[in-house]
Amino acid sequence: MPVEPYAAIEITAFEWVPEFAQGFVRDLRPRWLCEEAGLPYRERLISAIDRPDWYHHEQPWGQAPFLRADDEGIAVFESGAILVYLAERTGKLLPANGQARAETLGWLFGALNSVEPSVFELGNVDVFSAGKEWAALRRPSLIKQLGRRLAPLEARLAEREWLTGTFSIADIAMVTVLRELKRPGMLDAYPALAAYVARGEARPAFATALEAQLTPFAANVPATLQGA
Amino acid sequence: MPVEPYAAIEITAFEWVPEFAQGFVRDLRPRWLCEEAGLPYRERLISAIDRPDWYHHEQPWGQAPFLRADDEGIAVFESGAILVYLAERTGKLLPANGQARAETLGWLFGALNSVEPSVFELGNVDVFSAGKEWAALRRPSLIKQLGRRLAPLEARLAEREWLTGTFSIADIAMVTVLRELKRPGMLDAYPALAAYVARGEARPAFATALEAQLTPFAANVPATLQGA
Repeated sequence: MPVEPYAAIEITAFEWVPEFAQGFVRDLRPRWLCEEAGLPYRERLISAIDRPDWYHHEQPWGQAPFLRADDEGIAVFESGAILVYLAERTGKLLPANGQARAETLGWLFGALNSVEPSVFELGNVDVFSAGKEWAALRRPSLIKQLGRRLAPLEARLAEREWLTGTFSIADIAMVTVLRELKRPGMLDAYPALAAYVARGEARPAFATALEAQLTPFAANVPATLQGA
Repeated sequence: MPVEPYAAIEITAFEWVPEFAQGFVRDLRPRWLCEEAGLPYRERLISAIDRPDWYHHEQPWGQAPFLRADDEGIAVFESGAILVYLAERTGKLLPANGQARAETLGWLFGALNSVEPSVFELGNVDVFSAGKEWAALRRPSLIKQLGRRLAPLEARLAEREWLTGTFSIADIAMVTVLRELKRPGMLDAYPALAAYVARGEARPAFATALEAQLTPFAANVPATLQGA
């Protein structure tokens, strides 16, 4: 397991998040890549509730993850950019050139720009804005909009184990996006996507990465919630 | 002007779109890069209204743009991936390594994954779903959410001409995202962002790319709308 206190790679994540977000914070993506690539990393945990002012100088929107590579003098934000950096650094999970590279980047951006926005808005409707009048009224059209993004993916993944044939950073992005749809039951209508998410989650590297994200949460429950 | 009928690079775009989308279709991004880099490209125009079935085999969601590079045997979708491919091919607008590359990719993914989703949803609220009850109810919280993404950008661009110091593919993405906010008047409260968008739009390569996107529209007005 590559979490090592003195590793050159540092991933910034949250010390605790509310239950609905546990296992779904995006630092799961670089953790997963590090596990797949056997790349050791250390953690820097910050408060998600009181995000430190200085953190906004590193990450413009105060989001997690953020990555530092001390040995190469790199500091990089946005999970997509972090995946590309780590893949290029290790020479793994992103072909170096040609059509295989173009296709992998296409699906990586597709996961983050064409699929995740609707998935994220569904989380807003179902969780953050649950009970708001607009959220209930918005839900049906959002489900339709999301369905238009999922149907072509379902067709593709009915024929392939991974998006581009071999497991890549595009799959790390897409699996972590799509697994958020299990809770609202949206994968029930998409058996190939459900099987694809299950294949991703069955990878030993995924399980180790997930456990690493979850481990600090138990020790860092906010005082106001303790015993609740 | 690099639109050349026999160029090796082919950009797929729409022959006509409704007025609100004219000048805002995402093929503007690779067109802009080609103009900046002096890279000739040819156009393949398809119908946005009746998107051909075969196009969905090339672009999973039937979106524009799509890019082919016949000389390298490349076919790539998603504007972000196309920008990376063209930048790596030409050696321009994306540093080859180090912190400059990491930062450029961070802002590129930031434009497409952290800023564009809220901008796109505002277009949904104001245009596609205008008049719907949920859209009016949703607007105030969406404006707040978008503001949280714009404020750190405003601070950064008050101090810099471009996101990473020199003009890059991150600016092509961010300027094309932010200029959509001019119409709803949202940039009035962000003078540094308004000036940044104006700087981007003042580049000769932008003007040529925009004109190239707009040119076919006049000739391809759908029969049902002619004379309307």
